[in-house]
Amino acid sequence: MDFNTDRFINDLNWRYATKMFDSTKKLAQKDWLVLEESLRLSPSSYGLQPWKFLVVQNKDLRAKLKEVSWNQSQVVDCSHYVVFTTLKKVTKENVDEFIADIAKQRGATVESLQGYRNAIIGDIVEGPRSEVAQAWAQRQSYIAMGNLMNAAAQMRIDTCPLEGLDPSAYDKILNLENTEYATVAAVAVGYRHVDDKYKDIKKVRFAKDRVIQFIN
Amino acid sequence: MDFNTDRFINDLNWRYATKMFDSTKKLAQKDWLVLEESLRLSPSSYGLQPWKFLVVQNKDLRAKLKEVSWNQSQVVDCSHYVVFTTLKKVTKENVDEFIADIAKQRGATVESLQGYRNAIIGDIVEGPRSEVAQAWAQRQSYIAMGNLMNAAAQMRIDTCPLEGLDPSAYDKILNLENTEYATVAAVAVGYRHVDDKYKDIKKVRFAKDRVIQFIN
Repeated sequence: MDFNTDRFINDLNWRYATKMFDSTKKLAQKDWLVLEESLRLSPSSYGLQPWKFLVVQNKDLRAKLKEVSWNQSQVVDCSHYVVFTTLKKVTKENVDEFIADIAKQRGATVESLQGYRNAIIGDIVEGPRSEVAQAWAQRQSYIAMGNLMNAAAQMRIDTCPLEGLDPSAYDKILNLENTEYATVAAVAVGYRHVDDKYKDIKKVRFAKDRVIQFIN
Repeated sequence: MDFNTDRFINDLNWRYATKMFDSTKKLAQKDWLVLEESLRLSPSSYGLQPWKFLVVQNKDLRAKLKEVSWNQSQVVDCSHYVVFTTLKKVTKENVDEFIADIAKQRGATVESLQGYRNAIIGDIVEGPRSEVAQAWAQRQSYIAMGNLMNAAAQMRIDTCPLEGLDPSAYDKILNLENTEYATVAAVAVGYRHVDDKYKDIKKVRFAKDRVIQFIN
């Protein structure tokens, strides 16, 4: 069966940043598992996966997070609330964990991967990019964010990405302060409320020739 | 027809960062148009779309870009080479262009959108985030990058994201230096070469409980 591209474009148009979730509607577990894979299998530079996705289901914590998220109702009303956290810097230990995982999963030796290890360390751990490692890691996590929203739309599950939040306050509430990870953004996942007026507003995007330019 | 989630997960696993493209295989125009929509319809904060996607098809330019891309062959061998560029800063004029487009497409007045306009300006143009506007815009573009790779995988079209490039050299080669935009990364799009040994290597991702943590 071929991939249905017409349906795919319809799905992309169907998606919108849901402002009001129906708090009575929860994702089926089988659907959630697909979304988890859309996160886990996301591409990242070097395949390093400099992220952790925290799924905050605790009601008290959600209420606290809402207060530092411009009081947006999505935080408490959605089915699954995914907080995107990324490495504050990339260490040799992070790279070694990744290399060990490659070796294990591919049945290779760690020694055979030294060239790859050293290339990563020479770049993002000790090279010029080490100073912007957090911004780099944050960018990677937005690939995963895109994948999550895209996968959800194709399953006709609603999402709302949230950048309007206080990352430092999130880190406190989620006890991240003494960890390697820090909050960058969040995505609320669930089902739109029938009263969400935003669901009926025309999506606005620049015309194609404004954002895509061929250089022939 | 329901979305086929098993196939979707297979597609995500099928995808890999293609190292060797078959330069004789070009995308069909109908497929390319779908990928364009996956870029154009991508979510971004405020819907502001702080990006331009340059599709570099000129052979001489591709050869020059390859030299400043760690000499990676994908730059010249792929079917479509998409350079992701983003705003260096966000200006009032950028916001006003966006607001005017909303007004036009929704049949609303610009005046009725002043609250939204001023919220954006108070944040990313004049607020504390204005100092990190470029990093912010770059993050947004990675959502589009994820969408492009995801859409391509579902169409069984290969991609390779490239961060291993010299953005300043790209800006020179592509005449971006006196524009509002700057290069952040690129994605090569096309079809894998039968001799690309990387296509057969097991994809490595951390186990689910390493990257997804429930807080109940």
